[in-house]
Parts: sequence; structure tokens; C-alpha cells
Amino acid sequence: MQVDGKVMRPIWFDDASETVKIIDQRLLPHELVIENLNTVDEVIRAIKDMYVRGAPLIGATGALGVYVSLAQENKTRENKTQGNRTEKSKTNTDNTMPDNEYLESECTRLKNARPTAMNLFWGVDRVRDIALRENSHDARIEAALAEALKVVEEEAVNCRKIGEHGLDIIKEISRKKNRKPVNILTHCNAGWLACVEYGTATAPIYTAFDNGINVHVWVDETRPLNQGSRLTAWELGKHGINHTLITDNAGGHLMQHKMVDLVIVGTDRTTRAGDVANKIGTYLKALAARDNNIPFYVALPSSTFDWNITDGIKDIPIEERDPDEIRYVQGLCNGKIQSVLVPPETSPAANHAFDVTPSRLVTGFITERGICKAGEDEIMALFPDKRPDKRSGKKPDKKLNRKIK
Amino acid sequence: MQVDGKVMRPIWFDDASETVKIIDQRLLPHELVIENLNTVDEVIRAIKDMYVRGAPLIGATGALGVYVSLAQENKTRENKTQGNRTEKSKTNTDNTMPDNEYLESECTRLKNARPTAMNLFWGVDRVRDIALRENSHDARIEAALAEALKVVEEEAVNCRKIGEHGLDIIKEISRKKNRKPVNILTHCNAGWLACVEYGTATAPIYTAFDNGINVHVWVDETRPLNQGSRLTAWELGKHGINHTLITDNAGGHLMQHKMVDLVIVGTDRTTRAGDVANKIGTYLKALAARDNNIPFYVALPSSTFDWNITDGIKDIPIEERDPDEIRYVQGLCNGKIQSVLVPPETSPAANHAFDVTPSRLVTGFITERGICKAGEDEIMALFPDKRPDKRSGKKPDKKLNRKIK
Repeated sequence: MQVDGKVMRPIWFDDASETVKIIDQRLLPHELVIENLNTVDEVIRAIKDMYVRGAPLIGATGALGVYVSLAQENKTRENKTQGNRTEKSKTNTDNTMPDNEYLESECTRLKNARPTAMNLFWGVDRVRDIALRENSHDARIEAALAEALKVVEEEAVNCRKIGEHGLDIIKEISRKKNRKPVNILTHCNAGWLACVEYGTATAPIYTAFDNGINVHVWVDETRPLNQGSRLTAWELGKHGINHTLITDNAGGHLMQHKMVDLVIVGTDRTTRAGDVANKIGTYLKALAARDNNIPFYVALPSSTFDWNITDGIKDIPIEERDPDEIRYVQGLCNGKIQSVLVPPETSPAANHAFDVTPSRLVTGFITERGICKAGEDEIMALFPDKRPDKRSGKKPDKKLNRKIK
Repeated sequence: MQVDGKVMRPIWFDDASETVKIIDQRLLPHELVIENLNTVDEVIRAIKDMYVRGAPLIGATGALGVYVSLAQENKTRENKTQGNRTEKSKTNTDNTMPDNEYLESECTRLKNARPTAMNLFWGVDRVRDIALRENSHDARIEAALAEALKVVEEEAVNCRKIGEHGLDIIKEISRKKNRKPVNILTHCNAGWLACVEYGTATAPIYTAFDNGINVHVWVDETRPLNQGSRLTAWELGKHGINHTLITDNAGGHLMQHKMVDLVIVGTDRTTRAGDVANKIGTYLKALAARDNNIPFYVALPSSTFDWNITDGIKDIPIEERDPDEIRYVQGLCNGKIQSVLVPPETSPAANHAFDVTPSRLVTGFITERGICKAGEDEIMALFPDKRPDKRSGKKPDKKLNRKIK
């Protein structure tokens, strides 16, 4: 996506230096710092400490992490070989042979970086499975990189398709409004920073903008971590899209006064009946949209559906994060990134990170396959291959009751 | 109210020094600084720059401001007299005679400190009218002080009564829950800091706590100015009441999961049909309360009803404040109160400061006269003396379309 005239992604493989590179999102919007991921430890830190965040991006980082582990092993072997040469001693390791034990243990370490991240497991396992098919070390590295880059591209393609399908919705509103700005409200960051390219919730917005449609985005700041204020506002601004930052409190008022035409949000996990787990506060916006007859869409790749559960409020446990994420606010002060304590030192806080919007409040889902209404029948009609009977040959899915993050 | 074992109010008259004193609320919760209001300029600055805030407290400050203007005039006269004695010259001023022109002009200056503050006009005019009845300067000062202190006491008494009536609601929930904690959610600060004593929304909470009822308060941080996080959390903590700070986004999730028994908020202006203007975000909490069958009460002195309007969404204009209130967040950093910039420097923000909750979402009003349902008939039954026909002898009220602040 556009950043100061350059095309950028939150993660990429630099051919020249053969290095995985990421944007350190912790420092946005005030500093754009690129980090290299040369070791598994660096990949784990990037995931754990939220240099990268957003389910699809974590999946992509995990996938590339498997490549990093093999490339790192390679360097270790080269060093050993050099050492052995110098010492003229014999080594027990055959450098051409792959080391299954090492690969498995590094993959486990990667998956433990955020033990509740479904996309992380998926990305790591997918690349590991492909790598394990190869019988030489070099072939493994090559296969792992190719598969990881395929994961990255697939994420980008899914988001592009979400954008194309969502475009129709925005186009229709623009037509009805005689090309006056279409005002779209979004919560949190389900943008390209979370998703390789286009984003999920933002994909229809970028696509509409790139197609010359007049759009304006109300950006919820999204307390406590301010992903809207820090990341969505930055993304949209860099791409040249009109946007206005608002408090999470403001959406209802704007909707009452016809200043919002459409709400689009992302999701971290959606049940097959259409209950939507997303960043805390999404439910309140859905209630306000319903109260004011404003369409409320959820944009997601099909991988975010959890086909095993129906009742999101009952079956999706919500992660409670560190209360200090509420108590302290990070920003720029005197040219430095600093944190300030807002409440009294002694006041406790509770930090429920997600909520569940019942499907009855959702107008529809925008997926890579098209748009459907938010009911089990409509969802399953768009994804007939995901019906339990179609999946009977597969192992039972043990995703039930995993926490979202 | 209790602050570190001392009884405190946000404004008071210190007999020993004959000085009006206030808490500078801008620095709470990190610094408790007491300021003297010795001149009208100091009173104006305190109101304008929000050393004091909250409709009832601004009214009380305006009332005492009239006394300050007369006391200040007194000192000027004394200085003049001393000067004249030294110079042995004759003065044209008779020191015993009151100066109507001076009083009127100072009152106008006071009222312009926040030109949209209905309680400010009311407080200033009430004390001015009483002062003008007196024919000597000294009698005016005395009468102004007595009337201003009466205003202050009346605010305290109203809030105490709101607390007593609201107590019944909390007591009943406590009984049903077998004395387990009653979880009450509140938004913004409608506490004693805004109201001299007890507060409005917090009055039933303090009263319940003082009566030994087990209460726990969910405190919405209340972006953008964080009055919940900075002021309500401080108040409740100092009084020893269990509370937990949450983001404004969290209330819906807590209600879905039966973690809220009752919502109580204040209001800046309520129509005679029961539409409630209050801090931005209140409407979203009312929607969530309705969606989860949780009682949603609004606590207010009857002076906050605007008897001239019915449709709050149509007839109450909402103030837009400085966008930097959203973009910058104030807190403690390295022992100093500082502000940090959260979004990109270039991202614009919109700061709608209030919203209107339609009466259909309000369970009832807790007033100094008792509790009533949120409908025009029920409200007018509790306040029959406010019926338009009963007020026909009065001048038409020109409050329509004034902005709330």
C-alpha cells in the first residue's frame, strides 16, 4: 500500500539481503522503523511483543518464521563447517541432511509465541508440513520460503477480493448520495497493517477510493491500545484517504444525525451462525447501527470463520489483557515516544479485549467469495464445502474454546 | 466528602481568610491543588479553563463569583481611601454607596466566562438580584455571600436527596443478590466534584455505601477528557468505594455477561419528555442496557430539566470542542503532568462532546423529589408546578437552542 509514494507491506522478504523484514507497529504512527527477522528468537519477540499484530499478519509471520528457522540452521551449519575446517576435526553432522527434530522444536517455539493465535498455528504448520516433504536441507529451505511467500500472497489476494466484493456496497451508496462522500465508520485496525495488503474492513474502502469513489472514514480511536488512532488513521492518511478521528463514544451520536452511511469492521473469530468476536466496543457500534437503520458489515477471509461453534457469546472466551494497557497511554511528547498514567495510581482496571456482536445485529459478511447475510443458512450456502458433513473425512477440529487474541 | 480522612468539597468559603477556595480539577488525580479565588478574573479563569466543571458546580462558582466581585470592589475602595488619606485629597466616591454599574458589568463578565452555561447564568443572576435589594455596600457584600452560600447548600441538599431516593433502587438489587456486590456502571463524572457534595449519578452510590451496602462501580474512562478515569475513580477511591476502571468500549460486553446490575448516569440537560443530553457515549451504554434488560437510570436535580423542549435529538445542539482534546492525552510521566500526541500529527479529529439518549431507553429519573419513569406524563406528574400553564405568569424562557456544555 502507499506510504509516502512507496508501496509497502507490513512484512516482506527482501531478495537482495535474503531477509524477512517487518514494520515495528509499536512505534507507529510516530516512527516508521523496519526490523529484520534473522532468528527465530527475533520472530518470537516480534509476535509476542506486538511488533506485528492482526490475525492474518501473525499467520504470515509464523509462516515466514519457519523459513527463518531453517535459514538460521543453515548459517549455524556453515559456521560449524568453517570451525571444523579450521580445527581439522571431524563432524558428526551431515550438512546435506535435514534435521526433523530441530524443525519441530523451532515450530513449537514459534507457536508458543502467542499460544492463543489460531492463524499462527495454521501458518507455521502449513509451511512445516511442506518443508518436511523434502529430503535435503537446501530443498527444505527453498520449499519453506516458497510456501511462506504463498501464504503471504494468499492473504493479499483474499483481501483484494474482499475489497472487490465490498466495493459494490459502497458504490451503491455513492450512487444514492449523488457522489457526495460516503461516510464509513470503522473500529480498531483491520487494515493492511493487520493483513499484508488492503486489510479486511478497509479493503472495500481502499478499493472504492482507488476506483475514484468519494469516501470519508470515521476512525474510532479504539481504546485501550488506540489501534484506530495510531494505525488506521496512519494507513488511511498515507494512502490519501479522507478520514476523521473520533472517540469510541461518538459513533452513536454521528449515526443519530445521519453522519454515517455504513459501518465496516473486521473480526478475530466468527461462528458459523454469524456471531462476531472483534475488538471490544464493536458490539456497541452494532447496537447503534441497528437503532439507526445503518448497514453494519463484517469483512473477513473465510479462514476467520470457526465452523465448529454457533453461539459466540457462550462459546468464545474473551481474553483479559494487562490493565496497564488502559491505565497508561502512549504517544509523542517532546519528540519522544512516552507513556502517561491517566487514572489514580491506586485505581484498578479491567481490560476485556474483545466482545461478541450477535448475528442479529450484523447486516452481512463480506468475504473473498462474496457477500452473504448473517445467518447460518446464508453463510453455509456461500461455504458449502465447510459443512460438517463435507468435512467428515477430516480430523475433529479442536479449536473449541481456544481464546482469541 | 472523604479525601484522605478529611471532609472536602470542590468549592468552599474559608471563614478565617474570608476567601473562596476551589480544587483545581485539571490536575486531578495526580495533584490536589487548592486555589484561592480573590478576583473576578480568577473566577472567570477557573470557569473558562475548567479548574471547575459540572453544571451545578459552575452555578455555585458563579454565585460565589458575585460575592468575590463585591469583596474585590471593597478592597479597591479601601485602597483608594488609604491613598486619598495620604494625599489629603478629596474623593468623589461615597464608600458606603453601592455601585450598580460595577456590579452589573462584573456579572456580565462572569456570565461570559462560559456563554453556554445555563447554571452559570442562573447562579450569577440569583445572587445579583438579592444583592441589588440592599442599599449599602456592606449590606450587599453580606447578602451576596449569604445567598451564594445558600446556592451551594441547596446543591448539596438536592444531591443528598437524590442519593436517598436512589438508595431504594440499589437496596432492592442488593436484597435480590443476597448482599453480593451490586455492580453499577457510570459514565463521565457526575460526582461530588461536579456538584458540591454527593454528586448526582454517584449520590445513590455514596448513600448505599454509607449505609453498608456492598457496591462495586464500573468506571467508564470517558474519552476524550477522561473524567471517569481522572475524577470519578479518584472520588470513589478516596471515599473507599470498590471500583474498576474500564474503557468506554467495555460496558456492552460486561452487560452481556451479567456483570452489570444497574447503570446510573448524570445529565447536562433533559427535555420534559425525558430525552437526556449527557457526555458523549451515554447513548451507547443506554442501548446496551436495553439490549440486556439492565435498568438505566439518570440522576438529576430538577433544575437540569429543560421544560421548554421535548425532542432532545432535534432540539439540543451539541457542542463541538477542540479536536486536540482527542489527539492529546494528559497524564503523569516521570513525576510530571504531561500530554502525549496519540494519532499522526496530520490526522484531523472531531470532538462532539455530548449525545442525546432518547427517553425510550431510560428506565427512570432519580430527582430530589423522588423517582419517575421517563415519559412526559410521569415527569410532569412529579413536577406539576413546572407545567407550562403553571408557569404562565413567568416571562417566556429563552433557553431554547442554547448549547449545553
